[in-house]
Amino acid sequence: MILTVTCNPALDMTYSVDRLVPGQVHRVKEVVERAGGKGVNVARVLHQLGEPVHALGLGDSSFGPSLAELGIRASFLDVMARLRRTLVVQGEETTSLWEPGSPVPADAADSLVELVGTALPGARALVVSGSLPPGVPAGLPGRLAGLAHDAGVPVVLDLDGAALQAALERGGAILTPNLDELRTLTDTRDSDLLPTVKHLADVNGAPVVLTLGERGLLAVTEDGCWLVTPPERVEGNPTGAGDATNAGIALGLAHGLAWPELLCRAVALGAAAVRRPVAGEVDLSAYASFTASVRAQRVDAMTFGD
Amino acid sequence: MILTVTCNPALDMTYSVDRLVPGQVHRVKEVVERAGGKGVNVARVLHQLGEPVHALGLGDSSFGPSLAELGIRASFLDVMARLRRTLVVQGEETTSLWEPGSPVPADAADSLVELVGTALPGARALVVSGSLPPGVPAGLPGRLAGLAHDAGVPVVLDLDGAALQAALERGGAILTPNLDELRTLTDTRDSDLLPTVKHLADVNGAPVVLTLGERGLLAVTEDGCWLVTPPERVEGNPTGAGDATNAGIALGLAHGLAWPELLCRAVALGAAAVRRPVAGEVDLSAYASFTASVRAQRVDAMTFGD
Repeated sequence: MILTVTCNPALDMTYSVDRLVPGQVHRVKEVVERAGGKGVNVARVLHQLGEPVHALGLGDSSFGPSLAELGIRASFLDVMARLRRTLVVQGEETTSLWEPGSPVPADAADSLVELVGTALPGARALVVSGSLPPGVPAGLPGRLAGLAHDAGVPVVLDLDGAALQAALERGGAILTPNLDELRTLTDTRDSDLLPTVKHLADVNGAPVVLTLGERGLLAVTEDGCWLVTPPERVEGNPTGAGDATNAGIALGLAHGLAWPELLCRAVALGAAAVRRPVAGEVDLSAYASFTASVRAQRVDAMTFGD
Repeated sequence: MILTVTCNPALDMTYSVDRLVPGQVHRVKEVVERAGGKGVNVARVLHQLGEPVHALGLGDSSFGPSLAELGIRASFLDVMARLRRTLVVQGEETTSLWEPGSPVPADAADSLVELVGTALPGARALVVSGSLPPGVPAGLPGRLAGLAHDAGVPVVLDLDGAALQAALERGGAILTPNLDELRTLTDTRDSDLLPTVKHLADVNGAPVVLTLGERGLLAVTEDGCWLVTPPERVEGNPTGAGDATNAGIALGLAHGLAWPELLCRAVALGAAAVRRPVAGEVDLSAYASFTASVRAQRVDAMTFGD
């Protein structure tokens, strides 16, 4: 069982229009709605791969049941007056409008720690993904990671902003920032990526996996530094590709894969997600073919802490 | 008691952004949501004026209660799987995205006729406003008007498309098209407006009030033809101004006002609605001052049917 935690879930909405023109009235041709949020996307991908998964988080009364309808075990605390929506207007271009998160009561963080604590026994990995709603302290993902660490469960944290900073200061969990998130932690240029990630892994005392979108990922692990690049340029929708990559990392940790193989699967899953039009799904045949062809390249023999 | 009927209600959402740029990701600064739809806006304005009102229509299980919370008596049949949303993105410009209406079961129209029938005794006016959702025949507003006619209750129909055409063919109810709606009925140029509206009133066998936005209205009534213009140019948000004008017409009918006074109040209410940032509200002090200054100008002694 892999646990995913989503503190700031969303209702993902997609509007289809011919063309979005500011100042005009548009009749929307089609509306698609689904339960979303980064941790939820991770859970969907794992579920699609047949991996037992339990999606946890903060939400409202309708959120967990909407995932349960898809066959995904879900436990979301009913602490939000309303769920934020993330609207994608799909015309000639893709335009996104992200609602702010709904504030949660002061005791919601403690309740979530308790919920995750009861779910941890028997878990093989924990993934905490995405932003935090107003009312949740930045240190919550780090607290959850500490709890999992004590239970011997490996942890992946896909965070940004103050939560990423707090997790780095606490240390010990695998961090998976993208380039924008990396730059909130430290000044860096593309030519400096390897030393920067090495330095962060050293501070973190645990691996750091920098996700690079269509360029794959750069990881500093106990087994060395690895650059993993997709086998080909993949056309499609990159939304949710990072979540699929995190699902791959959690899957590899849960099954005890060595880092090079784990990272290859993570990159193959990210690329296979681009092939699907919605976040939280992967193209399974593309995943199989990418897994067979992607290779990890050792970029530096030095491991963090050396 | 004035009855309003809304067959295609909506959840009105407003997103505040700095500037809407197609192809970009926007963090929405503020989300405002409220129960909407043209008949609902009419009911809100009447309620704000202290007029007893009963809002009826098709909807879902949450729609009526959300109006009842505002103190508005509401009876909406629970026949929609989901309520359509009308999204306004407010940045440097106002951009609108209108979801399609949710289809309703085949027997929803009959159920609404029954519901309105039970509400009619004691009513002083009926207003049927707005579009029809998929599954509702174009003749439904005309059927409701016939029912009210039989009960001696005056009717205002603010419709478009096939429903407006069907209501005109049936005749007998006051029609309040705008210029766009008029042009779906007949070819006309601005210089031809009076003869066109006279002709429609003749076909209709009842008054036709052409709403002209910031130019006021042109009405062909039993008491003659009237042009009523706002007393000044009003800056603000014109969304919902037409609904306030319809509320004014219903109010005048309910209180037995003569046409010139009724039309002046309708124009004053429409202008007072422009002063408020959201549809379904009027600026009460502006309404008082506009009512004191607006005048109806007789534009032709000939009445329809002459």
